[in-house]
Amino acid sequence: MNRWIAVDWGTSFFRAYLIENDFVSDKIETNDGMKFLQQKEFENKFINLIQKWLVKNQKIEVLASGMLGARQGWMEAPYETTPCNLNNLNYVSPLINDNRLSLKIFSGVSQYNPPDVMRGEETQVAGFFNKNKNFRGSICLPGTHSKWLKVKNNFIEKFKTYMTGELFQVISENTVLLHSLNSEKIEKNEFLKSANKIFQNPENLTNALFQIRADDLINSMGPVIYKSRLSGYLLGIELLGAKDFWENCDVALIGSKKVMDLYENLLEDKVLSLKKFSAEEMVLQGLKSFRKNLMKS
Amino acid sequence: MNRWIAVDWGTSFFRAYLIENDFVSDKIETNDGMKFLQQKEFENKFINLIQKWLVKNQKIEVLASGMLGARQGWMEAPYETTPCNLNNLNYVSPLINDNRLSLKIFSGVSQYNPPDVMRGEETQVAGFFNKNKNFRGSICLPGTHSKWLKVKNNFIEKFKTYMTGELFQVISENTVLLHSLNSEKIEKNEFLKSANKIFQNPENLTNALFQIRADDLINSMGPVIYKSRLSGYLLGIELLGAKDFWENCDVALIGSKKVMDLYENLLEDKVLSLKKFSAEEMVLQGLKSFRKNLMKS
Repeated sequence: MNRWIAVDWGTSFFRAYLIENDFVSDKIETNDGMKFLQQKEFENKFINLIQKWLVKNQKIEVLASGMLGARQGWMEAPYETTPCNLNNLNYVSPLINDNRLSLKIFSGVSQYNPPDVMRGEETQVAGFFNKNKNFRGSICLPGTHSKWLKVKNNFIEKFKTYMTGELFQVISENTVLLHSLNSEKIEKNEFLKSANKIFQNPENLTNALFQIRADDLINSMGPVIYKSRLSGYLLGIELLGAKDFWENCDVALIGSKKVMDLYENLLEDKVLSLKKFSAEEMVLQGLKSFRKNLMKS
Repeated sequence: MNRWIAVDWGTSFFRAYLIENDFVSDKIETNDGMKFLQQKEFENKFINLIQKWLVKNQKIEVLASGMLGARQGWMEAPYETTPCNLNNLNYVSPLINDNRLSLKIFSGVSQYNPPDVMRGEETQVAGFFNKNKNFRGSICLPGTHSKWLKVKNNFIEKFKTYMTGELFQVISENTVLLHSLNSEKIEKNEFLKSANKIFQNPENLTNALFQIRADDLINSMGPVIYKSRLSGYLLGIELLGAKDFWENCDVALIGSKKVMDLYENLLEDKVLSLKKFSAEEMVLQGLKSFRKNLMKS
C-alpha cells in the first residue's frame, strides 16, 4: 500500500494528512504554529501530533512545506530563487531519532530584486499547476502576507508580497481603531466604495485609516461599516500596487472562500478571467506533485 | 499672588505645571495617561498627583486640555467644530469634591467633512498664535496621530489627521517586521530615499513594508537601515497626502525635536518657510492664552 504523510506547517497552524493510495484517509489540524515552538521542540511535537499514524518497524515518508523550513523552524531549507522551476524544488532532511519516519522539508522561494520571500505558497502554486498545466498568467494568494505571482509552465517568474492581512489584524487589534471595528461582517457596497477611494488617492491611506475612528466618534455608523472600510482601504492599495499582475491577465486566486470573494468583488470586471481555488486543496496537490517528481528522479 | 495650575493630560502621559506670577514654579510629569484610568478614578488620581500644590482654604484654578476631555476621560468636553476660533473655546467644569480647587477642561475640535477630531493639539495651536499673531499658513503636529492644519487669525480652518506614529509603533512591535527594526537610530540618507520611493509610488506602501522583512532575510543590512526605511515610508505617504497643506506654504512644526528634524529633512526645500516649536512649550502658552481670554470676558 502506498502510504505517506503530507504536512503544511505554518506560522500559526499545523496540518497533516495521512495519504493512502493517493487518498486522504485521515487529517490532523491544530494551532501548534511554528511561532510557538523552539527549534529543538519540533521533532517531539511532530511525533506526538501524528503518533497514531506510526507503525512499528515501518518507515513512513513525510513531505512537508511551510514555515517549518524557516531559519527559526525545524530546520532551514534554503530558498530557491526566481525564476524558479516548481518541478524540482530542493529539500532538506533533518535527522530524526525515530526509525518509523523520514522527513523532507521543501524549500521556499526568494527573489533578489526587489527582495521578496515565500514559504508554503510555492507548494500551493505547484498544486495549482498539477491541475492547470497550461496556465500562463498571474496567481494571487491573499492572506497575512498576500502574494501576487507571474507564472507559466510550472515556473514562478517573479512575485510581490503585500502586508495586507497582517496590517488588517494589528490595526484591528492594537490601535485606537479597535473601538470601531468589532465586527466580522463586511458590507459589500461600503467595501467597494472604500477600495475605490484608495484607488483614486492611495496617498491618503493613513489619513483614511484615522478617518475611520473620527467618523465613528462623530457619526457612529456601527462596526460593520468601519470594518468594511478598513478591508476596502487595505485591499485597495494592494490591488493598485499589483496592477501589473492583473490588468489584462488571466488570474487565479488561491485562498479561503471568504477572502477570495472580496478579491473577486474588486477584480471580476477588470481581468481577462478569474478562477478560485482552495488553498488547503492546493497544498495537498502540491505535496503530491513534489512526491511524484521525487519518484521520477 | 497670581497662582494657578495648567494640565496637559493625554492618552499615555500626565503633565501639570504650577504657575505663579506667569512663571512655571514647579512641574509634575508621570505616565498616568487617561487610557489607564476609569472615569471615576480621575478626581482622586489628580488630587493625589498635585497634592503638594494644594493649600488649605485656598481655591486654586486648574485649566486642562487633552484626552481627559474625551468620552472615556474625566468628563466629556464636546468638540468645537471647524472653522474654529481659538480665542473662545468652550470648556466643562466637573464638580470636584475638594474645595481647594476648581477645574476647567477645554474642548477639542472636530470637523464634519471629511470627519476628523483633535484633543490637545488645539491648545498647542492657540499657544503658537499667542507668540505668532499674524501667521497664516499651515501647522503640522507630528505624533501618534499626526495633524496638518490650515490656520489664520487664531482660527483653525480645516485639518487632516494621519495615523503615522501609531502605525510606526504597531508595525515595529506587533508584526513580523519587529525582528528587523530593533533600533532607535535613523540614517538620514536611507530615510530620504525611502520617503522618495513612496512619493513616487504610494500604491506600493504595503509591499514596501513587507520588503523590509524580505530584504533583511536576504541581505541583513541591520536594523538602522530598516528602521530608517519604515520612517521614510510612513512619513512619505503622510507628506504626499498632505501636499495641499505645505506646497507653497509657510509651515510651522510643533512637536518634539527628534521627530520635527525628520519632517524638516523632507520639507525644508519644498516649502516657503519652515519653523519649529516645542509641543510642551506651546501647550503651556495655549493654556495661558485660554486663561487670559477667560479673564477678559
